[in-house]
Amino acid sequence: MLDFTATYTDLYQLSMAQVYFHQGHKNDIAVFDYFFRKNPFKGGYAIFAGLQDVLKIIDELKFSEEDIAYLKTQDFDEEFLGYLKGFKFNGNIYSVQEGDVVFPTRPVLQVEASIVEAQIIETLLLNFLNFQTLIATKANRIRLVAGERMLLDFGLRRAQGPGGYYASRAAVVGGFNGTSNVLAGRDFDIPVSGTMAHSFIQSYDDELSAFRDFAEGRPRNCVLLVDTYDTLKSGVPNAIKVAREMEKRGQKLLAIRLDSGDLAYLAKQSRKLLDDAGLDYVKIAASNQLDEFVIKSLLEQEAPIDIFGVGTNLVIGSPDGALDGVYKLTFSAEKPRIKISESIIKITLPHKKQVYRVKNDNGEALGADVVTLAEEEKPERMFHPFEPFKSMELTGLKLEKLLQPVMKDGEIKIDFRSLTEIARYSKKRLAELPTEYKRFNNPHIYKIGISQNLKEERDRLISSFKK
Amino acid sequence: MLDFTATYTDLYQLSMAQVYFHQGHKNDIAVFDYFFRKNPFKGGYAIFAGLQDVLKIIDELKFSEEDIAYLKTQDFDEEFLGYLKGFKFNGNIYSVQEGDVVFPTRPVLQVEASIVEAQIIETLLLNFLNFQTLIATKANRIRLVAGERMLLDFGLRRAQGPGGYYASRAAVVGGFNGTSNVLAGRDFDIPVSGTMAHSFIQSYDDELSAFRDFAEGRPRNCVLLVDTYDTLKSGVPNAIKVAREMEKRGQKLLAIRLDSGDLAYLAKQSRKLLDDAGLDYVKIAASNQLDEFVIKSLLEQEAPIDIFGVGTNLVIGSPDGALDGVYKLTFSAEKPRIKISESIIKITLPHKKQVYRVKNDNGEALGADVVTLAEEEKPERMFHPFEPFKSMELTGLKLEKLLQPVMKDGEIKIDFRSLTEIARYSKKRLAELPTEYKRFNNPHIYKIGISQNLKEERDRLISSFKK
Repeated sequence: MLDFTATYTDLYQLSMAQVYFHQGHKNDIAVFDYFFRKNPFKGGYAIFAGLQDVLKIIDELKFSEEDIAYLKTQDFDEEFLGYLKGFKFNGNIYSVQEGDVVFPTRPVLQVEASIVEAQIIETLLLNFLNFQTLIATKANRIRLVAGERMLLDFGLRRAQGPGGYYASRAAVVGGFNGTSNVLAGRDFDIPVSGTMAHSFIQSYDDELSAFRDFAEGRPRNCVLLVDTYDTLKSGVPNAIKVAREMEKRGQKLLAIRLDSGDLAYLAKQSRKLLDDAGLDYVKIAASNQLDEFVIKSLLEQEAPIDIFGVGTNLVIGSPDGALDGVYKLTFSAEKPRIKISESIIKITLPHKKQVYRVKNDNGEALGADVVTLAEEEKPERMFHPFEPFKSMELTGLKLEKLLQPVMKDGEIKIDFRSLTEIARYSKKRLAELPTEYKRFNNPHIYKIGISQNLKEERDRLISSFKK
Repeated sequence: MLDFTATYTDLYQLSMAQVYFHQGHKNDIAVFDYFFRKNPFKGGYAIFAGLQDVLKIIDELKFSEEDIAYLKTQDFDEEFLGYLKGFKFNGNIYSVQEGDVVFPTRPVLQVEASIVEAQIIETLLLNFLNFQTLIATKANRIRLVAGERMLLDFGLRRAQGPGGYYASRAAVVGGFNGTSNVLAGRDFDIPVSGTMAHSFIQSYDDELSAFRDFAEGRPRNCVLLVDTYDTLKSGVPNAIKVAREMEKRGQKLLAIRLDSGDLAYLAKQSRKLLDDAGLDYVKIAASNQLDEFVIKSLLEQEAPIDIFGVGTNLVIGSPDGALDGVYKLTFSAEKPRIKISESIIKITLPHKKQVYRVKNDNGEALGADVVTLAEEEKPERMFHPFEPFKSMELTGLKLEKLLQPVMKDGEIKIDFRSLTEIARYSKKRLAELPTEYKRFNNPHIYKIGISQNLKEERDRLISSFKK
């Protein structure tokens, strides 16, 4: 059992919290931005995921008795531990909706809370949002190439420990149809599916008996793995025999599965054997080190594959393995805060903010989000964050407000949606995005602009810092 | 909360289990090998980790009422569900000790159980062992280059969700000294440590006040982050001021931390400033996208860094992200089983087996493990698995038995060791391995031999299959 108590955090959050607590900053209101700096997978976008899970945990987050006893051994003092005993996150969280298409360098989520509370939830937030956003994005790239074909997550065995549980969920946000992961299926209401292992066939003296037993024991959604001995000479012919036997019992073989060899060639040959046997309804599933590039190649070769089982590369978000999401202070103790850096793109945007998506009258995204101060009116012009002569007129365009309150004074303010609804929303949002942003090679770069007020505030803070 | 019930598995395990259950194979005893095919990170070895965690879970593994209710909706029948309700793993597990140095293609762990039970635990076993072995190996590579310097895991925020919890544990098996992950520290008795975030300094109007407050509030193990504004002109001079103030209070500043810029240059300059101020006891910690290669380079440049904080690259096991461990049937229904493949190295070794490490009289590993049938005597000669003319005399050498019973009839048969003991054992085992196997570029390939009896059995099965 892995219980997400408030010690699911980095020690320094608690160290800083104790210092704030004692040095008069306990009630300072702070604002932090969650954002990432680079799209994963060299792509043009990311799919935001993990929000509902982390909100649920934050809503109930506390330090258990075991936590307090442990922290006592780590040099925290009684008064501060007393505070932790009664800890409850009472802040506000503003966020993009789960499943939305999001882009680098602008706030995806904002936390506004006492600086102590905001620090304590930082690691948890980053851990959940970075990972699920990574996996939802990976899943979505695979969905983009797979069209309407069925996509199943088979990754639990190679997942990063219990990360696999949330990977299965995030895969659905990104467009997957189901998972082999039973626990994730149970908890997130994801359709579960699966076939059979090579070991099942090996445990019999011959392949045909194994297929027969399996088809009798699990006739519904029956998928037979045909590559244990020889796909075209043994596996598919035996599957055809069993499919015919199933027909006599009024049942239908759902699919055969290919798990090795040249999948394009084997799928074509198997399709032919099945069709020649009058089994055109039997689908072909394929697995074995798949990712978006392999699937793209298979489909370009016109491999007649109906179902793709994707494992490792999906659930570990290969090759990136991590999203570089960060949590940056933008306001505290009644002052805007800025992080200065030698590298201009690493300078943060101060103040509590709002983000708008620029759209035309047809609801199509025009390839730009604009960041403003939270309290200002919708801007009429947006400015390039660093190039002073670049700006764009916004009058006449629609500006859609992206950050909405999802938690207010520690209470969840949204109705949770089912994974199916989140995935549907994600699909809709992605459809609003022109295709140039979705290609794998050198995708069009989505613009992030800032309002004049935000620009002036930022520049004022930079100047005052330079003095 | 993430509860590891028996649905922490792939659906096909349960589908196959139901078929075995009804088709007269319920009590067939099966043997499965857990092994991996390739060393991670193009290295010459792996560090086996995760065993104690997974044994603990298997020991208590059951289907909860929620699981049973869920499975009822997934087309499993009442009789089989009745069996699952009373499920308990009653089999045997033989394994290498946690922390040992292990190599590709030979069994690291063997499960001997009814085929139903053996299938149900497969995914859980693979999920835990693959991930922790990956991370322990990564950690160990970092340890090899870092010498005696302190290594801290700072990765939770970029970890693959709750995978980070076990990553912190596995890092210690591989030689790390501590973690920032408080929950892992609490549960696995790992020293926790941490410094401060840039946000802490930003939340103050000036760096010196931030340092002062922090040093007052957390004087023990105090580490000041010096790169927020200007490392050499502001951060280090302010840290020196605070260190002197601490001295007056009878306290000592533990370290400064560098988190950006040219770490080699900044460490050298910072060291000089500290030493010139008479603060030679103040250590230098560094973080920022570190891995074994960056640390190696820093130390080759003689950067005076005492503490390395390693995050993302450690906890996600970058760049591999997964270990390719598999679980292969080698015996069932009273017969040895073999998996045939076009690719000769993918042909499995049949039967329940034993593995010996070949050593000389001084206890040094000679670079070979030999796999035998479980019941045979220690072999006098080992054979190359696929090249018929290669063999090696073993008489006069020591053969150390590696697979020991760790679970017998479902009961844990070993005394659990602390992480410190496991890490110490790992260090000892690694010391027994000649250095050529530990280098990063083209490490010497550790040999896996098989006994004559095993070779004959395997060849017999291949021949009978070819007929």
